[in-house]
Amino acid sequence: MGSDLTWKTSITKVEPNNVMVRGYPIQDLMGKIDYAEGLYLALKGELPDEKTKKMLGAILTSSIDHGASPPSTLAARTVASTGAPVNSALAAGILAINRYHGGAIEDAMMSFYDIKKHMETDGLDVKAAATEFVKKQRQAKKMIFGYGHRMHTADPRQAKLFEMAEELGFRGTYVEISLAVKEAIKEIIGKDLPINVDGAIAAVLCELDCPPILANAFFIIARLPGMLAHVYEEISDCKPMRKIHPTDYTYDGTPERKLD
Amino acid sequence: MGSDLTWKTSITKVEPNNVMVRGYPIQDLMGKIDYAEGLYLALKGELPDEKTKKMLGAILTSSIDHGASPPSTLAARTVASTGAPVNSALAAGILAINRYHGGAIEDAMMSFYDIKKHMETDGLDVKAAATEFVKKQRQAKKMIFGYGHRMHTADPRQAKLFEMAEELGFRGTYVEISLAVKEAIKEIIGKDLPINVDGAIAAVLCELDCPPILANAFFIIARLPGMLAHVYEEISDCKPMRKIHPTDYTYDGTPERKLD
Amino acid sequence: MGSDLTWKTSITKVEPNNVMVRGYPIQDLMGKIDYAEGLYLALKGELPDEKTKKMLGAILTSSIDHGASPPSTLAARTVASTGAPVNSALAAGILAINRYHGGAIEDAMMSFYDIKKHMETDGLDVKAAATEFVKKQRQAKKMIFGYGHRMHTADPRQAKLFEMAEELGFRGTYVEISLAVKEAIKEIIGKDLPINVDGAIAAVLCELDCPPILANAFFIIARLPGMLAHVYEEISDCKPMRKIHPTDYTYDGTPERKLD
Amino acid sequence: MGSDLTWKTSITKVEPNNVMVRGYPIQDLMGKIDYAEGLYLALKGELPDEKTKKMLGAILTSSIDHGASPPSTLAARTVASTGAPVNSALAAGILAINRYHGGAIEDAMMSFYDIKKHMETDGLDVKAAATEFVKKQRQAKKMIFGYGHRMHTADPRQAKLFEMAEELGFRGTYVEISLAVKEAIKEIIGKDLPINVDGAIAAVLCELDCPPILANAFFIIARLPGMLAHVYEEISDCKPMRKIHPTDYTYDGTPERKLD
Repeated sequence: MGSDLTWKTSITKVEPNNVMVRGYPIQDLMGKIDYAEGLYLALKGELPDEKTKKMLGAILTSSIDHGASPPSTLAARTVASTGAPVNSALAAGILAINRYHGGAIEDAMMSFYDIKKHMETDGLDVKAAATEFVKKQRQAKKMIFGYGHRMHTADPRQAKLFEMAEELGFRGTYVEISLAVKEAIKEIIGKDLPINVDGAIAAVLCELDCPPILANAFFIIARLPGMLAHVYEEISDCKPMRKIHPTDYTYDGTPERKLD
Repeated sequence: MGSDLTWKTSITKVEPNNVMVRGYPIQDLMGKIDYAEGLYLALKGELPDEKTKKMLGAILTSSIDHGASPPSTLAARTVASTGAPVNSALAAGILAINRYHGGAIEDAMMSFYDIKKHMETDGLDVKAAATEFVKKQRQAKKMIFGYGHRMHTADPRQAKLFEMAEELGFRGTYVEISLAVKEAIKEIIGKDLPINVDGAIAAVLCELDCPPILANAFFIIARLPGMLAHVYEEISDCKPMRKIHPTDYTYDGTPERKLD
Repeated sequence: MGSDLTWKTSITKVEPNNVMVRGYPIQDLMGKIDYAEGLYLALKGELPDEKTKKMLGAILTSSIDHGASPPSTLAARTVASTGAPVNSALAAGILAINRYHGGAIEDAMMSFYDIKKHMETDGLDVKAAATEFVKKQRQAKKMIFGYGHRMHTADPRQAKLFEMAEELGFRGTYVEISLAVKEAIKEIIGKDLPINVDGAIAAVLCELDCPPILANAFFIIARLPGMLAHVYEEISDCKPMRKIHPTDYTYDGTPERKLD
Repeated sequence: MGSDLTWKTSITKVEPNNVMVRGYPIQDLMGKIDYAEGLYLALKGELPDEKTKKMLGAILTSSIDHGASPPSTLAARTVASTGAPVNSALAAGILAINRYHGGAIEDAMMSFYDIKKHMETDGLDVKAAATEFVKKQRQAKKMIFGYGHRMHTADPRQAKLFEMAEELGFRGTYVEISLAVKEAIKEIIGKDLPINVDGAIAAVLCELDCPPILANAFFIIARLPGMLAHVYEEISDCKPMRKIHPTDYTYDGTPERKLD
């Protein structure tokens, strides 16, 4: 019978002895592109230019790990400690990356895109639009995502992201918006909160024209090397079914060192 | 009370305004290392040299996508089509990467490590050890993993991986073992099966001294950009709750093209 | 050290040789209560009366299975076919129960609770409140959940649920609301849509004073026996990594039969 | 085109306005069978007799909850605390039910089935077969599953299960085997370990002729009401992203009470 189930996809064509991702035979890509370029190609359909590649790479590196306390890491280690296969442990960790953990990137991106639209629609400058946004959130008793951190008052990852954005030509409207919101929070709410790493990633992903719905996935992909290292440490070095304290652990690895 | 729950980790140290992965402040790594280097650092505790980085990067690229039919992709798209958040769709896709899908890498690695040990213990050359291995598997009616493919009789990804292994100095004993097993299969079983991409990745990961238990995770990480692209395509372009035919789709993306 | 991590839970107390769920030693519950009563006790803290137990049991039975085409079943079978452990297959199936699959129960419950509130706040009768609701949804181009089905024009599960609700004393305001919405859809939109099984479950769960956030979980728990049967059939009877057609299968089990 | 994808299933037939599970229209089952009967029907294809229903129901109740410390509960609460949807939290909890958590049921079942086969093949009595089994495990330095507990020296759930098995006619060879293994451990290893709840469930599931591969799923299904109650408590009563201590919590619910 003819099928009404037939459908179309535009990502990868597979033929005998040929696999083409967005038109490129994989073997041509191997050795030529790095992971960030592959990610960009898979999602956007074109390879990024050199500057976009560098910026995206830095975003991925910025979130590689944050110790054993984040809930995604604890969930992954907890599952690993029960004798789970590695993919189950990673899946559980990924299920913990949501609104309150990693999710601030998506929320901040939506704010920044809204503020930009507001600037365009109502002819506001960045300061005015940021001020209105902060006032509106405050009145509605809604959170402002991407500012403040439980631990870091001046996050070096944020500073580095914005420094690279500047160098690579990505310090555009969205970075300005993120800084203007910081000032507006100080002025209107009276708190001098830093832009956190989520807020900085959000601003730069907006500069890269990324849809907010992918933000969570970028964070997941960025965090996987760290998550996997924790799962592997749990499996290799820890007793099965141990009780995993969420904060009472110490670091016994390589001391701080400089990159050559 | 003093806690017997106290534990140690050697991956990342987090202090106020400083996050050090394996000793390196993240901001020093950002812009300096790519994703493959970050993955290697997180797992091994040291940065890879330039050749290892290239080899690992090529492995990751080799598995970036294989169209819409692999069960991980179908599981991820199926979940995405129900209105799931992106992380749920990715988690479901990852749960489909097991013994029969992606898992051949781990199984092939264990075979190759076993054959190497056998060579050392019993003073066999590679041909003799491979022959004994194939005979033993045949007698026990066990699968030999990493050979043959439903679709590809000469997988260009395998050829490229071994070509790069040669150039970069990773064509060592394990690559020889994988080739010797191919010959032994032909001789003993009478089938001329190609080394498939799983077998080639397995041989090269052995060269990189990777523990088999991580093979599944490497495949997961390699495949995530493709899986995410499928999830995003499903969410963006497809009707919710559609019936997803596992093979009856056509590719309507960019035609085959050369990399500049 | 004293810990600020100390917290409280009111579900189960575990002591050496005694496990008390909501105050009851488990061994006293064993043999005395069925699964539906245990579910109610765990969530509400008290055992249900006989009528509530029967009603809840009927809801659970009503969703036990719906063949192999629902995305949760396909996701679970797809994962199972890759050699996954059973828990991974079930987890993947559960991840497919979302807004568009099973989720209509939660959405319909929220509508029914809203309509009830509207009746109380504005002194409207059920017909007027249902009419306003349908008009409002139509104007806002929003879905009305719980009505119509791709396959069933008169769902026997809905009829049975309302019949039992009548007998057991749960045909209250929410059931009336669900019927009034059906009439209002006919009048205002001109479509004679049946209340589907999701809508019927929603109305009855409102009668049982269930919070909407638990609706998804009730559907998950109700569907698990069916999902597990599919996973077990896939593992026992089907070839690993087969391509699973989402609709082109036939039923070859026991023919229709009467319950004694 | 004709499709080679066509397949068969024997669980549920869905027609317009009729859903038949194992031949029975669902509406006939609603109000007539409880959850345990539905589970048995879905898996086995026939309804259980009254005694089997009671026994299976008691097994499900026996594992309904064990406080907040089991890793499945911690994983589910950890994921819930990040703002996850309920199905994600349950999926993560289920992913934590593995070899070391819940998995002892499957392992014990396999031991008991092996011992039984050994009795038949070699004409051994239960004591001799159990003794050989314990000796063999000891020599191979392998675990014996289903005996001993970190907390319970005389588990009331085990006692109740065996008492019910006696009453209902399920105290057969497998229960005898489980007791003989207990004696053999005392004699050979010199430890007086109790049969734990996993071991007792295993023995009774063997009596019910359950395949070991389903044991994990039975535990999952049994535990879901408790897991859901924990997830709901976490969402309703706890601060998002709190640090969840795995043991330092107190029970503040209903005090111990008698069932009427």
